[in-house]
Amino acid sequence: MSIRLAQNDYGKSRVRLLRVTRGKKKHEIKELTLAIRLEGDFETAHTKGDNSKILPTDTMKNTVYALARQNPVDAAETFCGVLIDHFLAGNPQIERVHVHTVEFPWGRIMRDGKPDGFAFVRTGEEKRTALVTGTRSKKSVQAGVKNLIALKTTKSAFEGFIRDRYTTLKEDRNRILATAIRADWLYESAEIDFNATWESVRRTLLETFAAHDSLSLQHTLYDMGKAVLEQFNAIREIRLSLPNKHYNLVDLAPFGMTNPGDVFLPTDEPHGLIEATLRRE
Amino acid sequence: MSIRLAQNDYGKSRVRLLRVTRGKKKHEIKELTLAIRLEGDFETAHTKGDNSKILPTDTMKNTVYALARQNPVDAAETFCGVLIDHFLAGNPQIERVHVHTVEFPWGRIMRDGKPDGFAFVRTGEEKRTALVTGTRSKKSVQAGVKNLIALKTTKSAFEGFIRDRYTTLKEDRNRILATAIRADWLYESAEIDFNATWESVRRTLLETFAAHDSLSLQHTLYDMGKAVLEQFNAIREIRLSLPNKHYNLVDLAPFGMTNPGDVFLPTDEPHGLIEATLRRE
Amino acid sequence: MSIRLAQNDYGKSRVRLLRVTRGKKKHEIKELTLAIRLEGDFETAHTKGDNSKILPTDTMKNTVYALARQNPVDAAETFCGVLIDHFLAGNPQIERVHVHTVEFPWGRIMRDGKPDGFAFVRTGEEKRTALVTGTRSKKSVQAGVKNLIALKTTKSAFEGFIRDRYTTLKEDRNRILATAIRADWLYESAEIDFNATWESVRRTLLETFAAHDSLSLQHTLYDMGKAVLEQFNAIREIRLSLPNKHYNLVDLAPFGMTNPGDVFLPTDEPHGLIEATLRRE
Amino acid sequence: MSIRLAQNDYGKSRVRLLRVTRGKKKHEIKELTLAIRLEGDFETAHTKGDNSKILPTDTMKNTVYALARQNPVDAAETFCGVLIDHFLAGNPQIERVHVHTVEFPWGRIMRDGKPDGFAFVRTGEEKRTALVTGTRSKKSVQAGVKNLIALKTTKSAFEGFIRDRYTTLKEDRNRILATAIRADWLYESAEIDFNATWESVRRTLLETFAAHDSLSLQHTLYDMGKAVLEQFNAIREIRLSLPNKHYNLVDLAPFGMTNPGDVFLPTDEPHGLIEATLRRE
Repeated sequence: MSIRLAQNDYGKSRVRLLRVTRGKKKHEIKELTLAIRLEGDFETAHTKGDNSKILPTDTMKNTVYALARQNPVDAAETFCGVLIDHFLAGNPQIERVHVHTVEFPWGRIMRDGKPDGFAFVRTGEEKRTALVTGTRSKKSVQAGVKNLIALKTTKSAFEGFIRDRYTTLKEDRNRILATAIRADWLYESAEIDFNATWESVRRTLLETFAAHDSLSLQHTLYDMGKAVLEQFNAIREIRLSLPNKHYNLVDLAPFGMTNPGDVFLPTDEPHGLIEATLRRE
Repeated sequence: MSIRLAQNDYGKSRVRLLRVTRGKKKHEIKELTLAIRLEGDFETAHTKGDNSKILPTDTMKNTVYALARQNPVDAAETFCGVLIDHFLAGNPQIERVHVHTVEFPWGRIMRDGKPDGFAFVRTGEEKRTALVTGTRSKKSVQAGVKNLIALKTTKSAFEGFIRDRYTTLKEDRNRILATAIRADWLYESAEIDFNATWESVRRTLLETFAAHDSLSLQHTLYDMGKAVLEQFNAIREIRLSLPNKHYNLVDLAPFGMTNPGDVFLPTDEPHGLIEATLRRE
Repeated sequence: MSIRLAQNDYGKSRVRLLRVTRGKKKHEIKELTLAIRLEGDFETAHTKGDNSKILPTDTMKNTVYALARQNPVDAAETFCGVLIDHFLAGNPQIERVHVHTVEFPWGRIMRDGKPDGFAFVRTGEEKRTALVTGTRSKKSVQAGVKNLIALKTTKSAFEGFIRDRYTTLKEDRNRILATAIRADWLYESAEIDFNATWESVRRTLLETFAAHDSLSLQHTLYDMGKAVLEQFNAIREIRLSLPNKHYNLVDLAPFGMTNPGDVFLPTDEPHGLIEATLRRE
Repeated sequence: MSIRLAQNDYGKSRVRLLRVTRGKKKHEIKELTLAIRLEGDFETAHTKGDNSKILPTDTMKNTVYALARQNPVDAAETFCGVLIDHFLAGNPQIERVHVHTVEFPWGRIMRDGKPDGFAFVRTGEEKRTALVTGTRSKKSVQAGVKNLIALKTTKSAFEGFIRDRYTTLKEDRNRILATAIRADWLYESAEIDFNATWESVRRTLLETFAAHDSLSLQHTLYDMGKAVLEQFNAIREIRLSLPNKHYNLVDLAPFGMTNPGDVFLPTDEPHGLIEATLRRE
């Protein structure tokens, strides 16, 4: 028998960064949590304990701060590219670098109806994400959103499904539809206005979710993905992962009451999970 | 030796509810997680296993849904009162009822610049809270907010503090100040426009946080509490609990760089915690 | 109108510490998360931004590490006392110090059937807790456990309870009883073998839970508390807080099947919550 | 432009199950959280809202309970296979079924030094996992563990690594090594004593972690994977994912103290992450 190291990578996770850009009348802030992952010629570290090709993960962390000082951190996608170029340039043993970012949503605190220049408030539970992968020959840029929680009280049905001996679910013409949107999309290039595009994709996802006459969550997922690909030529592919966060109509019949869509029980578990990738051909 | 049951209570926690109010042009939704807690004459349940005075916690849950069907759930504070009255009316063995609610923030999805009437999106990480306590003679209504995350990049100093042999902290004239606001305030009465007041208190807390020339988090906490008591005669007392979420300036000197307030390391642990109660006299 | 600072305190939370004691044949480890809270004469920090009586929370953190170097950290309760004495001795403006600790359970990795002297593995989800409060005249020591998850498949009934119009729960002679034990007990003095006593109380709680013929969770809670007070003269008072983690028998009748106690649905929400304090008189 | 549904799947997540097997002298329990995911001919559900090939996720949940009643749930891996066979047999539109399980560790409560037959306590933070994938032609069985937290106070060095301009890490001959082991291994067949093998692999992972003279976490990871492949012929491949949970030696020099390996600061973020797959050839 022989044993082979079939794959390996390493890196630093949960590197947290706040980058402030100070103007006279207002400051801009960007708060990211980064994860860096390297692939390359690291086999002897595993098999022999030879660290001579190992850039310490502690150095990766320091590099994030040093490069954040020397570069603007406007779009996370761009900053990921800066990090990738740095690691590839200085380390011939590295073949591929992945940088993943999660961004916290900060908006401005309003004072007397106007946005304050220097004070901020968290504006959502959702997170903006990016994953940039780079080799010496090319970069691939993926953007996304996770935990964007949405709910609609109309235009959602689920009927005509398979019934077998274990089926008890009733057909429903007007159920509540709720989900926590996770979407990841792949850009055609690395030359995009990442911030503006992200905001537009987020809006398209929510508007399509709201507008759609849903026959199932699959049906709505497809419509959301299709709307993004139709509106954004810069996007080649989108993956959507939508939990079906069930809001169950409470049965009030034991108490002699009807329940015409008034009272629901929100649940986290179990939940349906619908996933699909749509691609431009 | 004798052993005494010095205190006891019981109830149902994490009862989840979505209440939909259906109009022609728009629906309203309210999503709450409730906790009910009863105090009263339950000693024999403990000492003898006698359940004859025990209203099951499962019944408490059912009661939430039945009463939510029969009543509007507009302000959580009011619905808590309805529940308290119900439990006290039907159960002579109960002396005191506590109902605590946590409300998820839902806003409307925008479509073509207008709020959709039927589709919603989560708008923050903060939660609105309420705690109503009632006996047969009176009700006490407390409202609050938790995890309202705020940050400012100017007007925050911390100087002139005690230095002992274990002090290494440097004085700072211009640090970042960040916190997750938890505030709980007590109303003078149960006849309040709870929704409008809550929105106004939230705005006052954020505006004061933003405007204040902070000499410490204690200093800012006090100003926030004072602003609320000054602006809202209906509020008798407010408690603030503010973690000091440290954003540490990264030392870039080892890399031959200055860092004039550009690059910070956000941390969750350890964190300072400042707490105080302000009361109108 | 005048506004008064009715109460205030401040401190450092989530101070993490691993203390290693190095012997020749084996090492001992203790991993704690500490929270320190001070009460005293801090009003002018709030009202005037005067920090001259403020010991920085950063210094509190440093003090934990410095005193952990100079003292053994064998029992957390004792180390809390060392911290309290330090803060009171050097700071006349402090009246009362609270130190709270949460300890992670580490056991030794077994090698060839014997415990390794230097390698450890996490042995439970439960946490040992302590809360020591001290003034210049006395110390109060409380110990505890939280999230000690236990379940029994027999000897648990719930019958004879109140039935009202919203009651649908059926009487049950043989249900599953599951909980996450939280217990906090107060010692008569500060001169206790804290480690041995804690282990014994934990064992008593679990043994009593297992042995009891439960007529309700209240009934079992009381028996658990009583057993602790009866066996440990050094304990004056114990508070138990027991969620009723419902494991619901799944109704398989729609599929033409019985379910004689085989298949259950574990749930986290909603859950009952039973709380009581027992005291020696 | 045309848009294509490149991939899709759906299923039910977080289906919770407790299966009790009742003997006269003792009961056995198994608590699982399952996730089922189907791949197959579901395109028209997405593109046309046609649900005629959709087995509702609610039915999947019911099926788990019905089959758990009709079958023992001894090893999760075997029960996953039962579910897969059921879904493939009744649904020609399904091509592939994935069933993932997470198992909570329950041990017996000790009474008077003997294990109780009917009362249980949670014994760790780790979870046993399984992922079985089946088509009409074959099944692939993967088992694993996650969050198995281990720490050693000796025999861990990290030296001889690359130093660049952003490197500040010092070489260390005797650091603390701590991780939360995640391992997933692939069996050669579906005819294995899954429970006994899992226990043995877990023991091998921990023993190897404890015994190894570590020159890096990569070095230890490789040794752990190698030990498993060497000892278990039934395992073809293993993937290890090991966070480097840094315990940093606290610098006490500012307080005039040395720190010869006594006092450490445990941290969760940032952390290193080392991943590799080892395969038998």
